[in-house]
Amino acid sequence: MPELRYNVITREWVIIATERAKRPDQFVRKQERNPLPPFDAKCPFCPGNEAMTPPATYVVPDTNSWRVRVTPNKFAALSYEGERKRIVQGIRRTVSGVGIHEVMVETPVHNMTTALLGDAQVEIIIQTYLNRFKFASSDPRIDQVTIFKNHGEAAGTSIEHPHSQMIATPVITSQLRERLSHALEHFDEFGECIFCRVREQELKDQTRIVLETEHFVAFVQFATLTPFSMLIMPRRHMACFAEIKDSEAADLARILRRVLAKLYRGLADPDYNYVVRTAPTEYSGVKHYHWYVSIIPRLTRMAGFELGSGMFINVSLPEENASFLRGIAVE
Amino acid sequence: MPELRYNVITREWVIIATERAKRPDQFVRKQERNPLPPFDAKCPFCPGNEAMTPPATYVVPDTNSWRVRVTPNKFAALSYEGERKRIVQGIRRTVSGVGIHEVMVETPVHNMTTALLGDAQVEIIIQTYLNRFKFASSDPRIDQVTIFKNHGEAAGTSIEHPHSQMIATPVITSQLRERLSHALEHFDEFGECIFCRVREQELKDQTRIVLETEHFVAFVQFATLTPFSMLIMPRRHMACFAEIKDSEAADLARILRRVLAKLYRGLADPDYNYVVRTAPTEYSGVKHYHWYVSIIPRLTRMAGFELGSGMFINVSLPEENASFLRGIAVE
Repeated sequence: MPELRYNVITREWVIIATERAKRPDQFVRKQERNPLPPFDAKCPFCPGNEAMTPPATYVVPDTNSWRVRVTPNKFAALSYEGERKRIVQGIRRTVSGVGIHEVMVETPVHNMTTALLGDAQVEIIIQTYLNRFKFASSDPRIDQVTIFKNHGEAAGTSIEHPHSQMIATPVITSQLRERLSHALEHFDEFGECIFCRVREQELKDQTRIVLETEHFVAFVQFATLTPFSMLIMPRRHMACFAEIKDSEAADLARILRRVLAKLYRGLADPDYNYVVRTAPTEYSGVKHYHWYVSIIPRLTRMAGFELGSGMFINVSLPEENASFLRGIAVE
Repeated sequence: MPELRYNVITREWVIIATERAKRPDQFVRKQERNPLPPFDAKCPFCPGNEAMTPPATYVVPDTNSWRVRVTPNKFAALSYEGERKRIVQGIRRTVSGVGIHEVMVETPVHNMTTALLGDAQVEIIIQTYLNRFKFASSDPRIDQVTIFKNHGEAAGTSIEHPHSQMIATPVITSQLRERLSHALEHFDEFGECIFCRVREQELKDQTRIVLETEHFVAFVQFATLTPFSMLIMPRRHMACFAEIKDSEAADLARILRRVLAKLYRGLADPDYNYVVRTAPTEYSGVKHYHWYVSIIPRLTRMAGFELGSGMFINVSLPEENASFLRGIAVE
C-alpha cells in the first residue's frame, strides 16, 4: 500500500509510491558524459579567457591565476543598473527588473567537478558564496538572495565548466514568505524551531541520515518529494546563511563535498541542483527560521499531476535512498 | 530593462527577461517525432489489446469498438482498495495511500493527437473527464481530483497513444488550499472573484488573448511563468469543473482543440501538459473560486533558481506569445 507523507516544513504532501518504487541502483546514470579536456579555448570560464566575461567582481587569487572568480552573468536575468520602482495599477503589480545576477566559477579546471575537488577548494567556494551573499544583501534594492548550482543538462546548465550562480531579486518570493510564516506559526504554537525539531527527530530515527559532521547533518527528509533529494542542515540554530562562522563554513565544505561524492560514486555522476535556502539577512537571529542547503538530483521529471496539484509522486523510498548513500564510501 | 510581474492568482513573481527573450519562432520544435503507425500490436491502449490493461471502468462505445476507454492505471500511484487512515505521531503525519488513478484513452487511433481530432471526439473526452471527476468526487475517501494530460517525453509521458489521467487523492494539497484561501481574501476585500477580474482585464487589454468562444476565453497570463503557457477560463462564474453545462462542455472541446492546434501548427507539435484546475465539488457554487484549464508547453527546464526560490524566469514575452498564436490559422 502506498503512503502519503506530509512535509511539516513546506506543508506539501508526497505520495511514496511503494508499488512503483525503483531500487536505488535503477537510478544510476546510464548515459556516459562526454569526456572533457582540462582546458577549453572556447570556454568563457577557463583561465586566460577572462576577456570573454564582464570584469570580475570578486577573485580569490592563486600564483599567476585564480582559484575562484566571480563575474556578472553576461546574459543576466536582472539589470544591475537602475532604480527599484514598483507600479501598482488596478490588479497589475510590476517592479523594475533590477537585481544582481552573478556567476561564480568554482575552479580553473574545465573538466573538474565538486565531488572531486579538495576540501580546501570547496571551503573557498563556500566563503565566496558568503561574500557575495553579504554583498548582495547590503544593496537596499534587494529583498532576497538565492545561491544555487546547476550541474548537468537536466539541471538546466548550458556551460560545463563548474560554476554556481547568485540571483538577488528586488522582491521576496511567495514561497519564502509562506515558509517564514508557517515556521512562525509553528514557533508560536510549540515554542520551537520546526527545522531544529525535524533535524532532532531525524537524528533520533537514524534511518534517513546520510552523513553527520561536527556542525551539520545531511539527511533525506521523511516526506522528500523526489528520489535522493537531501538537506544539509546546521546543528546550531541560525535563521540566515550570513550568520555562519568560519569553522562552520569549513565544515559545510567538508559535508557538501562528501555528500556530492556519494552521489557521484553511487549514482554515476547524476545531474543535480543545490540551493542555499535561507531567510534574508534582516531576519538574522530570529528564533523561528533556519537556513540549510537543499540538494536535488534531477532523476525524474515533473509531469501534469505535479504541475497541476503541487503534489509529487516519489518513486523511491527515502529510507532506502539514505541507506544506499550511507553505504557509499568517500574520503 | 527586464520586468518583474506579479501573478495575482498564484501570488508568484516572474522575471520577464526582456534582454534574454527569444522570438516565438525560436521555440519551434526542431527534433522530428518518430513516425508512429495507426495501430501498434504492443500498445496496451490500442483496440484489441484491452486484456493488457485492468478492466474498463467507463467506455464510450462505437460500432464493434470504442471511442474512449477508461481503465485503472496498471501502475497506479494510489491503491483503490482500502480505508483512508491518518496517523499523527509527533511531527509525523501520514495518510494511507488510497485513491483513484485512472487512464483515459482518448481515441482508438495510436498515432492521433488531440490537435487533429474532430470537435465531436474532443467533446466525448471532456464528457469523460466530467464523468470520472464526478465519480471520484463522490467517493468519501477523496478530497481532491486532478485531471491532466502529459503529451511528449518532456511532459513526462511514456506511452505515445493519446491519453489523459485522473489522480484522486485522500488529502487536499497545500497548493490548492492556499489558492482557495488567497481567492477568499480577495473576495472579502474587493467583493469580486479574482479570476473573473483577471479575465475581464485581459478582455479589456486584448494583447494577451489567444482565442475567444461563446463560453470561454483563452489567454496568456500577464505574469505567465513559462513560454506559451495559457489559461482557458469559463466566462460564467463557476468554482468547480462539475458545474459545467453540456453546451459549455461542447464549447470547451472546441476551444481546447483549437488552442492545441495552434500550438501544433505554430510550434511544430511541442510537448505539453494540461490540467483542469478546480475547487473540489464541495465548493460548488462559492463566489470566490473559479475553475479553468491550464496549458503548459514544456519548452524550458526548471533549474536551481526556480526550484530554490519559487520564482521563474520567463525568456519570452507573454504579449508576443499571444500575438504569435493569434496569427496561427486553425479550422
